Amino acid sequence: MTVILHGYWRSLATFRVRAALNLKGVPYRENIVDLSKGEQFEQPYQSLNPQNVLPLLEHNGLRLSQSLAIVEYINEVWPQDSLLPLDAAGKARVRSLAQIAIADVHPLIVPRVRNYLEQEYGLSEPARLKWVRHWFGKGTQAIEARLEADDLSGLYAHGDQVSIADLALVSHVVGARLFQMDMSGAPRLEEIVGNCLQLDAFARAHPLAQAGAPATPA
Amino acid sequence: MTVILHGYWRSLATFRVRAALNLKGVPYRENIVDLSKGEQFEQPYQSLNPQNVLPLLEHNGLRLSQSLAIVEYINEVWPQDSLLPLDAAGKARVRSLAQIAIADVHPLIVPRVRNYLEQEYGLSEPARLKWVRHWFGKGTQAIEARLEADDLSGLYAHGDQVSIADLALVSHVVGARLFQMDMSGAPRLEEIVGNCLQLDAFARAHPLAQAGAPATPA
Repeated sequence: MTVILHGYWRSLATFRVRAALNLKGVPYRENIVDLSKGEQFEQPYQSLNPQNVLPLLEHNGLRLSQSLAIVEYINEVWPQDSLLPLDAAGKARVRSLAQIAIADVHPLIVPRVRNYLEQEYGLSEPARLKWVRHWFGKGTQAIEARLEADDLSGLYAHGDQVSIADLALVSHVVGARLFQMDMSGAPRLEEIVGNCLQLDAFARAHPLAQAGAPATPA
Repeated sequence: MTVILHGYWRSLATFRVRAALNLKGVPYRENIVDLSKGEQFEQPYQSLNPQNVLPLLEHNGLRLSQSLAIVEYINEVWPQDSLLPLDAAGKARVRSLAQIAIADVHPLIVPRVRNYLEQEYGLSEPARLKWVRHWFGKGTQAIEARLEADDLSGLYAHGDQVSIADLALVSHVVGARLFQMDMSGAPRLEEIVGNCLQLDAFARAHPLAQAGAPATPA
């Protein structure tokens, strides 16, 4: 049963799913959909995912979209090394941390939003960069405050077990770095993300380790 | 064990959680945090949720944030009338539909984003309204396409059982209507949301049925 991940090096949402598959040891093939060429709007991808966004996971005849839904699916179908704690309160904490990154920040900085700010309102490149950094900064503050509000983080976002929260926090920080954000105001977040990136599963999933990525990010 | 929901009539994310509590028959007390007066930035709420966003659910000594994480928690702690299907594929479909509304659309139209567009880039009220309607429209198209792509919706978004997807789709459509969006291009979505709003649990949770809501929305 081949698993196919449709993704692109720079897609932070694809990064999350790639890392989850690696953590679970699930073999998969990645099909590159080149966002820089607009391939998400062309066939064959247009038919696979009419929302024209990445990632998409094909498994068992299913086509799954939305990174968090995909990651929950992966965690259920391949239950080893669970990416969620056992208790309801722990699950809520993990999912809440993930949502801050995935739902409060990432949707604001994706290409379709930056493009709309340019095309509709004529925002210059520096103005758009300020927008991106503003929302990354707000999210970083919120995440750091949450991590510091209790003693529940450890090596990783929730104790010493890698969870869905780490997938989201790593993609958040790696994304912020692609936009040259200063992360020094969030030492706890930086430490956790550093610990994750020492794991082979995250290192191999990193955007800059993918085919098509530039040696130095633009 | 009192359940306290911190919310506000116009908060679409609070609406989702309110409807989930109603569907589960969980008694709760709602504490109004008046977003129009900026009470989310003041004490006592500032200490309860340093991210200054709604909703927040207090239960059993826990403070839970992020609507989707809260709803998953509610579904686990009060398992009757599950808001998720049993199969992994069904869960992924439900969560994916929810994410389109919660993560792809809603973060773009919240007050903090509209305020930033005004303060930072000087966007006028009509320009900001165009922004809001653009993203609601894109999300509506994506949701309708997903609903039409398979035969898995029924009375509700996933068969004839109310699910987390319905919480998200109802809040999406009710939000779009608050901005006077024309929903005629999404008949399947409209039908499902209409069916949900006939349920007492949704009707009582509706923004315009809450204390502080105007008789006619602004």
